[in-house]
Amino acid sequence: MKNKVLFIVTAVVVFLLGMLASSIVNRKNEAKYKYVPKVELGENEPRNEEWGKNFPAEYQSYLQTADTSFASMQGGSAMRDVLHEDSRLVVLWAGYGFSKDYSQGRGHYYAIEDIHNTLRTGAPEGKGDGPMPATCWTCKSPDVPRLMNENGIAEFYSGKWADKGAEVVNPIGCADCHDSKTMKLTITRPALVEAFQEMGKDINQATHQEMRSLVCAQCHVEYYFDKKLPGKEGVPYLKFPWKNGMTAEAMEEYYDEIEFSDWTHQLSRAPMLKAQHPGYETYLTGVHADRGVSCADCHMPYKSEGGQKFTDHHIQSPLNNVANACQVCHREDAEKLKLNVYERQRKATENRLKLEDFLVKAHIEAKKAWDLGATEAQMKDILTDIRHAQWRWDYSAAAHGASFHSPVETARVMGGALTIIQEGRLKLARLLAELGHNAPVEMPDISTKEKAQEYIGLDVEKLKSEKEEFKKKLVPKWLEEAKNREADYSSKKVSMVN
Amino acid sequence: MKNKVLFIVTAVVVFLLGMLASSIVNRKNEAKYKYVPKVELGENEPRNEEWGKNFPAEYQSYLQTADTSFASMQGGSAMRDVLHEDSRLVVLWAGYGFSKDYSQGRGHYYAIEDIHNTLRTGAPEGKGDGPMPATCWTCKSPDVPRLMNENGIAEFYSGKWADKGAEVVNPIGCADCHDSKTMKLTITRPALVEAFQEMGKDINQATHQEMRSLVCAQCHVEYYFDKKLPGKEGVPYLKFPWKNGMTAEAMEEYYDEIEFSDWTHQLSRAPMLKAQHPGYETYLTGVHADRGVSCADCHMPYKSEGGQKFTDHHIQSPLNNVANACQVCHREDAEKLKLNVYERQRKATENRLKLEDFLVKAHIEAKKAWDLGATEAQMKDILTDIRHAQWRWDYSAAAHGASFHSPVETARVMGGALTIIQEGRLKLARLLAELGHNAPVEMPDISTKEKAQEYIGLDVEKLKSEKEEFKKKLVPKWLEEAKNREADYSSKKVSMVN
Repeated sequence: MKNKVLFIVTAVVVFLLGMLASSIVNRKNEAKYKYVPKVELGENEPRNEEWGKNFPAEYQSYLQTADTSFASMQGGSAMRDVLHEDSRLVVLWAGYGFSKDYSQGRGHYYAIEDIHNTLRTGAPEGKGDGPMPATCWTCKSPDVPRLMNENGIAEFYSGKWADKGAEVVNPIGCADCHDSKTMKLTITRPALVEAFQEMGKDINQATHQEMRSLVCAQCHVEYYFDKKLPGKEGVPYLKFPWKNGMTAEAMEEYYDEIEFSDWTHQLSRAPMLKAQHPGYETYLTGVHADRGVSCADCHMPYKSEGGQKFTDHHIQSPLNNVANACQVCHREDAEKLKLNVYERQRKATENRLKLEDFLVKAHIEAKKAWDLGATEAQMKDILTDIRHAQWRWDYSAAAHGASFHSPVETARVMGGALTIIQEGRLKLARLLAELGHNAPVEMPDISTKEKAQEYIGLDVEKLKSEKEEFKKKLVPKWLEEAKNREADYSSKKVSMVN
Repeated sequence: MKNKVLFIVTAVVVFLLGMLASSIVNRKNEAKYKYVPKVELGENEPRNEEWGKNFPAEYQSYLQTADTSFASMQGGSAMRDVLHEDSRLVVLWAGYGFSKDYSQGRGHYYAIEDIHNTLRTGAPEGKGDGPMPATCWTCKSPDVPRLMNENGIAEFYSGKWADKGAEVVNPIGCADCHDSKTMKLTITRPALVEAFQEMGKDINQATHQEMRSLVCAQCHVEYYFDKKLPGKEGVPYLKFPWKNGMTAEAMEEYYDEIEFSDWTHQLSRAPMLKAQHPGYETYLTGVHADRGVSCADCHMPYKSEGGQKFTDHHIQSPLNNVANACQVCHREDAEKLKLNVYERQRKATENRLKLEDFLVKAHIEAKKAWDLGATEAQMKDILTDIRHAQWRWDYSAAAHGASFHSPVETARVMGGALTIIQEGRLKLARLLAELGHNAPVEMPDISTKEKAQEYIGLDVEKLKSEKEEFKKKLVPKWLEEAKNREADYSSKKVSMVN
């Protein structure tokens, strides 16, 4: 009897051990499986779903950038209307596209949809039409490196935005940062490579950890369109203004040297600079960069699923993912860490809003001076002060996250703006007194986005209805054309592989 | 033969074991020895050398605060002449003692000598003479709690500084922070206890870790002299302006409410506030405080000598002691950690100097307005702007270490100052235009301390020679008198104990 029991127990134990062994083998297979490609990717394959067949874990996490239920990068609802939240911006950007529409971008998944939708791209009716150049597509899609490889870089930058609407259809994704053969991180945008060359650096020497920031720096940087490139005159060639350095002052000096301005301000007539989103430049001045932390470490931390460790491609605010993003290093309560971030943001915002008030006043005071007959000579220095102060403000404000990534540098740059605009407004006060107006200039009611847009004479309703037409007529055509082209491409590729 | 060798080896090993055992016992004794007092300390014992007999390790480390070969708190040479380094300060403090002399304090060991020497305390010829009240001794010596216990608090604050020269002679030391019976940390200055009461807090509830900052907060804070205290009218009673909070804005609001000013500015006639050294208040807004790090953790880290672990009483800049101060938490290279501090300081300094330029200009522009016949009513708001802006500047600048302890808050407060002084100077420009002067106001040459002091009409040579007289005649008398008193006290105490 005793032996029989022992026999049964042994049999059961052996059976369970067998199951355990099988499970371990399967796990190992699962881990290996990752590296066996299911499809062969073409060199310029722009479709994320094709890459996703080989890398389902990464792809499925990427797809979560479509989720807008969370806060996206900055907290708050998915698509904040920034002009609605802060109507001063309408005046600061009067005469420039951003005064029409400036909503916080959603996740990478929406890159194409959002650029179709924004009023800034206007409502072209077909090729050769619309306010924006083709260069505006550069950061929106893995179709961009495809087109550059197929046709050439300057050729890509040439023509109107609407010219390439049927070509650029896949939202930011795999091929923007990865080599389709080796899967290594790779730089696909020539502007970053060329900017490194201008600084005397070779981007090919970057370490893997540096690449985990540099792939982001292809787009999350300050840039401008150079229309004077020798041999490419007239083509709005995408360039980063890093030749003298990446600080607000170094870039300003560069822009001043080449006498570049993004637009002439509608009210003050100042030759303005628009800071895009110098996120990489400001990040570099902060303590996380100093400690060797990359963009991906916080915005794409490692994740584990089914025994596989992989990089979370749900690129998002670390505040949505404190456990994996922050608490790997910071052994503090998650709520406390978030409060630490909010406090830095709040303190930066306090002075940023005051600075905006001063800039708004300066533009309107300058307009008053022009109205009273000021001369170009009288206005020259004043307009330079406005240009420099607003550039510093925009550098601090537009670099999303700067007040956290680098709060001390951000405060330093805003302090600089406050000093410059003080001198500018003093000159304006004296000039206005000279022109017979020795009193504060009356300020218009710009307390809402609508009032501010009305003040600068924008017919937003018209822009919106034109945009609706564009979305109804041209966009479906683009997408249809792209679908046929891609189907064709797929069938060719399959025949090639087989 | 073999046995003989074994016997000898055993004997040697046993002998060495005996030595080891003896060494361990001695070590234990050494550790115990610390707690056996050699002398019995009187309740109000002010002499550090008496305490040192019971606590030689702590006392000997305290004595190192006499060492000026290192940088003291801020780096650089031992006693920096701050007015020499930044002559704008002479104008900012015109009409106030700090424009005469402002040198960086040395270690606690020199507290008495340095207050004798500074031109700010003048050259009294005896009791009842000189510019300063007795209250100015409050933070300088453990004789202060002794005198307060012996005679009363308001009695201590009464009279002139020179009245108590023979009583206050021992430099800041043991009895300022420790209870002579229990050796526990204790608050000896009533101002801190009273400030907590005004905020509705009980300082007796403070934890030991909080006390490791609060003993410092007895002195390293913002304070003022309240001459209107009910029942003590006319006595310059030491108070902390914390009733509404400890931020720059909360303290300013408090001072505005009670219409307090430290002095009337000599040039602008603005009712000024002098920030003393709100080090504790600014520290509280920084990340180290947020993480529960106390003043002592960095400025008095633990140290080990002869098997004893004790608190290093060589209070100094953590930058002189990175291994014990910073690297306990921060696993970074010491040089990198120092560079991180210097970078924060440099960025704060950049905007601070610009702000000082604006404040200097505002004072001189205001003087010009008075000279041109401005009325009190025309000047009122302008002077308030100057008061508020300079207060914020001083709050950021005078809190030694604020640009490191709390760089974001410091930048926020300086940004506030930049916005206020902008509005003030615009009002001034318009007023000056109205008074017939529509141009930048000519600035005097204040490029050196000497030129700036000459501009505000200070006869520094006279002050210096008077100070020499004072040091030659009165100081030796004070010290002689104190020596006799203390000898008398010692002999009485010894007879009491035996």
